[in-house]
Amino acid sequence: MRNQFHEELDAVGATLVQMSGLVKIAMESATTALLTADLALAEKVIQEDSIINDIQHELDARSINLIARQQPVAADLRTLVTSLRMSADLERMGDLADHIAKSARMRYPSTAVPPELSLTIEEMGRVCGKIIEKMAVVLEQRDTNLALELETDDDEMDKLHRRIISTLLEPSWKHGVETAIDMTLLARYYERCADHAVSIARRVYFLVKGEFASDAK
Amino acid sequence: MRNQFHEELDAVGATLVQMSGLVKIAMESATTALLTADLALAEKVIQEDSIINDIQHELDARSINLIARQQPVAADLRTLVTSLRMSADLERMGDLADHIAKSARMRYPSTAVPPELSLTIEEMGRVCGKIIEKMAVVLEQRDTNLALELETDDDEMDKLHRRIISTLLEPSWKHGVETAIDMTLLARYYERCADHAVSIARRVYFLVKGEFASDAK
Repeated sequence: MRNQFHEELDAVGATLVQMSGLVKIAMESATTALLTADLALAEKVIQEDSIINDIQHELDARSINLIARQQPVAADLRTLVTSLRMSADLERMGDLADHIAKSARMRYPSTAVPPELSLTIEEMGRVCGKIIEKMAVVLEQRDTNLALELETDDDEMDKLHRRIISTLLEPSWKHGVETAIDMTLLARYYERCADHAVSIARRVYFLVKGEFASDAK
Repeated sequence: MRNQFHEELDAVGATLVQMSGLVKIAMESATTALLTADLALAEKVIQEDSIINDIQHELDARSINLIARQQPVAADLRTLVTSLRMSADLERMGDLADHIAKSARMRYPSTAVPPELSLTIEEMGRVCGKIIEKMAVVLEQRDTNLALELETDDDEMDKLHRRIISTLLEPSWKHGVETAIDMTLLARYYERCADHAVSIARRVYFLVKGEFASDAK
């Protein structure tokens, strides 16, 4: 009985890793759609967001059922409750990819991102992808050193975010207020996505170490 | 023993209502600080956000402890798991009030909001306060009719959000890109805060009715 419980607990972890993979693909595809005005790809991201949502609902039902049936205590219960939170983070990350794809779709056939910002957005997409990939390893292998690395990666994201804002504020900015609004929101979506990934890594850190990652810095 | 459990469960609910009250005050104070460039009030909101965060941490520990000790099944377990989610929503709503207060502080001694938008922002603050207040009643009395009303109130928030964006896009907009960036983010903070409140009302609806509020429309 005990073994079956731990198998089911492992399956919950595996589903979180699977969700991470889908979120990473969604974020990468949304970035490509955004930078290349690829309408079909944007539509694909928007449509497939419901897959991530469905997995979350199924996973949550499974986790709650597992708590009810097996009545786990201490560490196992904390793991399951934390899984519920991490699935909510992942679902929200999927929403943010969906928002980016919708921004690409709204401006089609134009490109939503003006030329002088496309490298920075590409970089935000790359850093976000790297953060999600590391987060998936943290989840799978409970690697607390890698969890700490994510804090530094997130600083990189904040730097890119500031670069976007300062470009918008340059006197030479010639794309007007509408594009500035788009870029403000897009930059925020990438930043929030990275925040959620860091938050997942911190939750794993806390589960393993019993202390906050911020205290280890 | 069973009675004591239900007393503790009621206490969890009461803490959520208490958090709602604090979030409402934070949102209202942040709005006042923003519209009147009141630095002291902005600092107060920023400082007191940690009170909301502390209550969330304490509440979550208490809920998990309750699950571990009492091993509730079915409805009681669902209520506790949902409480964990609602406390996360409330904590995030507090963060958004904190963001608004920080925006007020950043622009002090100027007012962050230009005159032609201050009525709309005031209205967003008012609608947000109304939504949080109703949400607290939904939480306290499990009033599913009121939960449905919140969906309509949220439409009002979306309308105000669109009004902000269209004002920014008017050819007569004379406050430049920096203020447009501020206003884009501020409008998003109010909208997200209302989204979290609606999400809490939907969770209560689901707990009581066993079906989604969206299916009842």
